[in-house]
Amino acid sequence: MLRFGILGAGRIGNVHARAIASSGRATVGYIADAMPDAAEKLAAVVGAKTASVEDIIASSDIDAILIATPTDTHADLIEQAARAGKAILCEKPVSLSVERIKACLQVVEKAGVPLMIGFHRRYDPNFAALEKRLRSGEIGDPEIITITCRDPSAPPVSYIERSGGLYRDMMIHDFDMARFLLGDEEPATVHALGGVLTDPEIGKAGDIDTASVQMQTASGRIVVITNSRRATYGHDQRIEVHGSKGLLRAANIHDTTVELANDAGWMQDKIPFSFVERYQAAYTAEIHKFLDFLEKGEAPRASGHDGLMAQKLAEAASESLKTGQVISVK
Amino acid sequence: MLRFGILGAGRIGNVHARAIASSGRATVGYIADAMPDAAEKLAAVVGAKTASVEDIIASSDIDAILIATPTDTHADLIEQAARAGKAILCEKPVSLSVERIKACLQVVEKAGVPLMIGFHRRYDPNFAALEKRLRSGEIGDPEIITITCRDPSAPPVSYIERSGGLYRDMMIHDFDMARFLLGDEEPATVHALGGVLTDPEIGKAGDIDTASVQMQTASGRIVVITNSRRATYGHDQRIEVHGSKGLLRAANIHDTTVELANDAGWMQDKIPFSFVERYQAAYTAEIHKFLDFLEKGEAPRASGHDGLMAQKLAEAASESLKTGQVISVK
Amino acid sequence: MLRFGILGAGRIGNVHARAIASSGRATVGYIADAMPDAAEKLAAVVGAKTASVEDIIASSDIDAILIATPTDTHADLIEQAARAGKAILCEKPVSLSVERIKACLQVVEKAGVPLMIGFHRRYDPNFAALEKRLRSGEIGDPEIITITCRDPSAPPVSYIERSGGLYRDMMIHDFDMARFLLGDEEPATVHALGGVLTDPEIGKAGDIDTASVQMQTASGRIVVITNSRRATYGHDQRIEVHGSKGLLRAANIHDTTVELANDAGWMQDKIPFSFVERYQAAYTAEIHKFLDFLEKGEAPRASGHDGLMAQKLAEAASESLKTGQVISVK
Amino acid sequence: MLRFGILGAGRIGNVHARAIASSGRATVGYIADAMPDAAEKLAAVVGAKTASVEDIIASSDIDAILIATPTDTHADLIEQAARAGKAILCEKPVSLSVERIKACLQVVEKAGVPLMIGFHRRYDPNFAALEKRLRSGEIGDPEIITITCRDPSAPPVSYIERSGGLYRDMMIHDFDMARFLLGDEEPATVHALGGVLTDPEIGKAGDIDTASVQMQTASGRIVVITNSRRATYGHDQRIEVHGSKGLLRAANIHDTTVELANDAGWMQDKIPFSFVERYQAAYTAEIHKFLDFLEKGEAPRASGHDGLMAQKLAEAASESLKTGQVISVK
Repeated sequence: MLRFGILGAGRIGNVHARAIASSGRATVGYIADAMPDAAEKLAAVVGAKTASVEDIIASSDIDAILIATPTDTHADLIEQAARAGKAILCEKPVSLSVERIKACLQVVEKAGVPLMIGFHRRYDPNFAALEKRLRSGEIGDPEIITITCRDPSAPPVSYIERSGGLYRDMMIHDFDMARFLLGDEEPATVHALGGVLTDPEIGKAGDIDTASVQMQTASGRIVVITNSRRATYGHDQRIEVHGSKGLLRAANIHDTTVELANDAGWMQDKIPFSFVERYQAAYTAEIHKFLDFLEKGEAPRASGHDGLMAQKLAEAASESLKTGQVISVK
Repeated sequence: MLRFGILGAGRIGNVHARAIASSGRATVGYIADAMPDAAEKLAAVVGAKTASVEDIIASSDIDAILIATPTDTHADLIEQAARAGKAILCEKPVSLSVERIKACLQVVEKAGVPLMIGFHRRYDPNFAALEKRLRSGEIGDPEIITITCRDPSAPPVSYIERSGGLYRDMMIHDFDMARFLLGDEEPATVHALGGVLTDPEIGKAGDIDTASVQMQTASGRIVVITNSRRATYGHDQRIEVHGSKGLLRAANIHDTTVELANDAGWMQDKIPFSFVERYQAAYTAEIHKFLDFLEKGEAPRASGHDGLMAQKLAEAASESLKTGQVISVK
Repeated sequence: MLRFGILGAGRIGNVHARAIASSGRATVGYIADAMPDAAEKLAAVVGAKTASVEDIIASSDIDAILIATPTDTHADLIEQAARAGKAILCEKPVSLSVERIKACLQVVEKAGVPLMIGFHRRYDPNFAALEKRLRSGEIGDPEIITITCRDPSAPPVSYIERSGGLYRDMMIHDFDMARFLLGDEEPATVHALGGVLTDPEIGKAGDIDTASVQMQTASGRIVVITNSRRATYGHDQRIEVHGSKGLLRAANIHDTTVELANDAGWMQDKIPFSFVERYQAAYTAEIHKFLDFLEKGEAPRASGHDGLMAQKLAEAASESLKTGQVISVK
Repeated sequence: MLRFGILGAGRIGNVHARAIASSGRATVGYIADAMPDAAEKLAAVVGAKTASVEDIIASSDIDAILIATPTDTHADLIEQAARAGKAILCEKPVSLSVERIKACLQVVEKAGVPLMIGFHRRYDPNFAALEKRLRSGEIGDPEIITITCRDPSAPPVSYIERSGGLYRDMMIHDFDMARFLLGDEEPATVHALGGVLTDPEIGKAGDIDTASVQMQTASGRIVVITNSRRATYGHDQRIEVHGSKGLLRAANIHDTTVELANDAGWMQDKIPFSFVERYQAAYTAEIHKFLDFLEKGEAPRASGHDGLMAQKLAEAASESLKTGQVISVK
């Protein structure tokens, strides 16, 4: 069975490590984290050992490196792992800098190692099913794509300060989803709006908490994305595609199918508040798709190129917000 | 335009009179009620005059008689109207006695006048659409029919005492709906359950407030009906047919399509608490169908025979409750 | 009862005339149309007479003028009716020119007559209920407003050529809905996208058929609107408001509540394909609100000022599409 | 970690073995099956060895026995495992004979070993959540319980012939669910209907394929159950409780949240056709609850007594069908 080395034992490192351990197709060999306690705790859960980042990357016992460290280390670690000949599954984003991503991808290409980017939503069973039906022509060509993403609450301001801003940190997933749904056409223009409506501290940190973007392709297709850092009703995740022959949409997942009726109305259950819970099936599917990539040679659903392109859109949106102008994407 | 005489200016008389007045195809000529104030008030609303029951039935200005008086007067009034050569639209039931209904229908037949029974649910756009699709073969043959009917609250005990009991007063509509959905096969056996769960006063009055009935046809088709006199969430009205090729169901109508999401869940709007509001479209359609019956010769959707057959099932259910036995219906 | 003169006996004139005739609170006195047959046909339906536009406006038998003529006549007719001292209910838009609207409103103001603009969606029971709950504070302050509007099919190209373009002809309703939902804050910037995806003839006529707009208020609130001239699934009409304390949305209305389950899935009924059917309740409510305005002095839900402001947004969107720039609205 | 011996490597044995292997809290030590290939195949999947039933029950390496063999062996195996001092998780039913169950439970009691019955639906997250909210008093006291269970297709006639009939084989789960939802009151009377509507071969085998049961408790509460062996739309599994303060229901689970709209209507995705897929979460939760029972001393959600009581209701229903009478349950 394929052996993973996991770099980063934080929340997302935990999610991946557990998904690997219960996959039945791979094991976790080593775990590294700047906080040794975190690494040891996770190692105990998944039956792994702890080691330093360098030793893991160099280890001949390890076939693949999963990178779940802070964003600013991603590109360097990808390059180190690539040079060591390891297969790589890296959490988004490769880097906050488009130029840095390009350089990094060249190293990967030169090394000839497999690289997949952790855009987990592409593996969500609902979104994946929608995309498959879209590609099969069920609603003809996509014309208007609407993506709704709202988080229950914002991360700490200390995190936001180093996040690269909402477009790079949060909407990056929606940019990737837009490209996933568009298929073979890229957004050509980006116009972004942003406001500080949920917490003035976010504004003081130079970021926004409420945002929308509209993009258009060369042929005229439209993508609309809305984001908020605060939704009292949970982790709101919806996509909708209006096509020439119909409409496809994927609604939120509710905790249970239980419904209550009384004199106040008819109450459906809540939706998940945690992305871990919301995307549990997606994270599991992601690991399996990565293994299919390595073992069966199936193309990765999100490549390094996809990581680059989503970042370009995030850059364009950031530039649009700053200048108040519409930005062309090359 | 066809001219109606309305006997009874209570709640249901009001519903019908307004439906006639706004039909654009008929007018209300006269209204009678034991309480002159009620008759005059309604007459003012629909542009009619008041008169005695006898004068209305005898009047040459009147083409059709709508009977919305207390139940124990229905059969006599039908006979009087029939002998006077009037078309008749009578609220359910014709009588609480099956024998009395039979005698009454003979008078109608002899007089050769048109008679339609006010089973308004057959005209509800949702239920009518379901029945039409069922008849078209969309789900093959019906196999299990489930009818759910729950009232927001019970009528006064004084009313219940003279109502003939829940099966004759409330479930009668569900017996008729069962026959409407079954099509050409009649229920052959009836087993009824009943309990007093919402108000002990109803029990003291000799009636029940919570009930279910299961019936079977000769070929083995099953009908299940459940009733309650008290639903905190409104006037619950649903039908469902499991067939050999699929399932058809008609859900409740909500007041609006507005939905609220917050940390408690996702709340759809209420459903109507009043049957007048719930079945407004049905009552309007009923008048038009009665006019189509008179003017175009279309068969009435609910005939005197339908009134008789529903009453037989109510009798059988009452007998089943009393004896604890399964009752065969002839 | 208040007497209406109706100018224009086309589709929308028909809708209004019938709503007035069945309101029980007003009558249609006269109807004018450039095509005498159309006027006479409608007059027969609602019990009115035909006359010339000039005679109707001058008639002392008429209290209120309903303007449902082609767009380019609206402003002139409003002015004539105002000078004649009539109350006015005018279909949107007052004019395709913002300057012309301003001049017209001054005439109305000087004449001191009541004027209401026919933004019928404000009277839709679902949208009106949502707005009321929003204003009551149920979800706190609005932060992101999403408006979806898609027509089943485009009007004839001959109509489109004189329509002023999609933003002025179709999205004008959504601009008004945006302002209705925002409450006391106006959109400050507008960015519009448009494409020709459904019919190249529309492009040849100089218009678009697929469009989106995003707008922002001074405080940072965001509005996103998407339009298409072609939806295979009907007249898609939805609004959604993400607020500081929750989310409110109003979904589409389906023809019936009937649902079919078979091996293909679970099929809900269609939604209306005709705006007349979709907004029947809205048109009825609109007439009653106009009567409440005249008789009880209740403020009109859509004033001449609202007509002006929606037009300004449509202008800004048209300018944005032409220049590819973000437009500030003063 | 607790070590399981699994008796029976058929479909349900597979489900349980995989749930144990991926639980992280227990392992599968040995597997026995009358067909050695089946045992070996499953053993390979979950990392276990094969052995004979006798050796597994006698093995000191095994802590708990999971019984997933044919029904007529259950009671004997329970007794053998109990005498060997093993904890036992047995698939329903313990036996088709009430008397045999009683005798078997006495052996278990004497041996003092833990026994849990595999009524997996009690562990379904939706049904479990509904029951918890019901017990918390959210809708007051239960008054009418409606249970809908329809299988996509019937098992082979050869299986049906030995199954004990629909009530014992299929509706047994609904009888258990009824008791689960009723709480501390037992059904006192049972009336059953049954028909052969889907396949005459089932009738020739002496069984029915379409059935309903209504039951009542001493206090008057009502339970209605409907079953069919053939539903074109999948494994239909719904429960609904009408209570004194509201209504709780748990709807079907759809394969995805994807919805398609076109000119035919609005199509939700299918529901699972396989009980394994439908109840995957339930089977996982069941293993964890069994482990909680053994390790933490939590009461089992379905005890041997529950197995006995459900069987009594199935007996009563079978008797009711045969005699056409209402049967009292003692």
